[in-house]
Amino acid sequence: MEEVRNQQVILKDYVNGLPKESDMLLKTSSTILLKLPQGSNGVLVKNLYLSCDPYLCCLMSKSQPIAGLGVAKVVDSGHSNLKKGDLVWGWTGWEEYTIITAPDALFKIQHTDVPLSYYIGILGMHGMTAYYGFYEICAPKKGEYVFVSAASGAVGQLVGQFAKLTGCYAVGTAGTNEKVELLKNKFGFDEAFNYKEEQDLDEALKRYFPEGIDIYFENVGGKMLEAVLLNMKTNGRVSVCGMISQYNLNEEEGMRNLSHIIMKRLHMKGFIVGDHINLYPKYMEMAIPLINEGKICYIEDIAEGLESAPAALLGLFSGKNVGKQVVVVAHE
Amino acid sequence: MEEVRNQQVILKDYVNGLPKESDMLLKTSSTILLKLPQGSNGVLVKNLYLSCDPYLCCLMSKSQPIAGLGVAKVVDSGHSNLKKGDLVWGWTGWEEYTIITAPDALFKIQHTDVPLSYYIGILGMHGMTAYYGFYEICAPKKGEYVFVSAASGAVGQLVGQFAKLTGCYAVGTAGTNEKVELLKNKFGFDEAFNYKEEQDLDEALKRYFPEGIDIYFENVGGKMLEAVLLNMKTNGRVSVCGMISQYNLNEEEGMRNLSHIIMKRLHMKGFIVGDHINLYPKYMEMAIPLINEGKICYIEDIAEGLESAPAALLGLFSGKNVGKQVVVVAHE
Repeated sequence: MEEVRNQQVILKDYVNGLPKESDMLLKTSSTILLKLPQGSNGVLVKNLYLSCDPYLCCLMSKSQPIAGLGVAKVVDSGHSNLKKGDLVWGWTGWEEYTIITAPDALFKIQHTDVPLSYYIGILGMHGMTAYYGFYEICAPKKGEYVFVSAASGAVGQLVGQFAKLTGCYAVGTAGTNEKVELLKNKFGFDEAFNYKEEQDLDEALKRYFPEGIDIYFENVGGKMLEAVLLNMKTNGRVSVCGMISQYNLNEEEGMRNLSHIIMKRLHMKGFIVGDHINLYPKYMEMAIPLINEGKICYIEDIAEGLESAPAALLGLFSGKNVGKQVVVVAHE
Repeated sequence: MEEVRNQQVILKDYVNGLPKESDMLLKTSSTILLKLPQGSNGVLVKNLYLSCDPYLCCLMSKSQPIAGLGVAKVVDSGHSNLKKGDLVWGWTGWEEYTIITAPDALFKIQHTDVPLSYYIGILGMHGMTAYYGFYEICAPKKGEYVFVSAASGAVGQLVGQFAKLTGCYAVGTAGTNEKVELLKNKFGFDEAFNYKEEQDLDEALKRYFPEGIDIYFENVGGKMLEAVLLNMKTNGRVSVCGMISQYNLNEEEGMRNLSHIIMKRLHMKGFIVGDHINLYPKYMEMAIPLINEGKICYIEDIAEGLESAPAALLGLFSGKNVGKQVVVVAHE
């Protein structure tokens, strides 16, 4: 029976706010057997791809491997529906091997004619987030004006493409000119701009949306939301998916212009995609053909090796990643 | 044919932000005939009761009589459905006599066994606002925890009573101890507190809602909303009816804690009741029996005479009014 040492990314100590790279430790365990304990109903998996997401920083526990979404291969199984060699995606740990004690929450991967890392992106929670937040919350109609922040990110790039598929006018914003080019030339946004180069976000939005915004897909919060509220149209909808600009502050910024919610009859809705996982099969029915027919694309930023994971995670907060940030633990 | 001079409340000059009492002028017109111009399809009304509402300050036009909701009696009519002596409510002017050129927007008063001033309160837009904002936006369920700000005001007092009729737990806040007593002893709120006596609104809300808030009926904005967001429960709903604390500022305050919208999956919805006037007959069917059976009450703060109107309007912003602020122009 195979014996291995398990490399893990551990949070050294409890941190308030954003961790530093040095707060995360790459640790190698003592030798373990690649076998489930006797009688376990769980599964032992080998992790292949890990998803870097801003919210992970809020979920970390001291001295534990960081928990997050991943794609993995079953090594040993005590669960009737999973067997050795099966590919799965779901919650796992930032380590080479993980025992998952509640394997019912794992998704067995059926379609393997796409990159496996897609299951922690376009074919996983991020795809579902874009799908639910855009279609279900915003109820978009052809011809509507859609604005997406963090538009080249794991979720934003999909929202823009869904908006175009729906016949909307889509504008995205990102923080480098390279990303702005991607938005326009790869994802098909009608327009895009680099928010870091704008003196006045309100003015920028008025330039791109002279008639106002029907739908805002919110990923960033802060000053961007303030400016967006000034530019929403009557009966506009704001899907509140994330506020990355606020996560690394000790105290949130105050946001002005909330009174626009009243006169403009705005609808603002926060959501956590995990509540809506019942829609996953419906989403897959839509997404798989779109991918196979080349009607939608997905850009990933791949970091190789578990040792690159801490920097990859923190890079999200300075916008280093171009597209969805993935860490490869092992290719198979 | 009767000749009168028409007393009017005029905005002297364009003002930025909140007007002062001295910005509003009581003016007496030259003599006018109490008769519509030949061929007019409008109606000439004698105004009886005027409604004082915070939003009027945003709608004022220079050198015009202030426009607002009122109860009036038809003096002369060029409209087929209205005749001399009919009682109506709707948009009119802050003056003794008004020619209403679009009388289709007036509501003919059918039930006269209630105080006529109710038609600019519980049986008018304020009742509809409480009804739509609470029932339609918040979809309350028995046993839920409801918080109402400006709770003794024209709308708030009704939201509290609707919440109790629905079997919810209702807490209100107001700015004097007299109003707090009214909330508890007259309107039947389970608890009430004077926000001006609280050092820490978050702590106050935690005291009254140890399990959190399901429904917040927002009338004030600012620091109260900040504290409420900290105390909302998962899947909570915020009906955004008004933000009176922000109307008299040159620049809105920044509000923190908006990121709670995400993790708590909050639903925030602004509305303008005029969009939902189709529900008025349904609301009346509910409200008239509730009033007649004494199951709901409505407190008004009556200012006598058009000359008292400017002070009554401005009094709203310092919370001088106890209950719905009405100006009596004439009793009949």
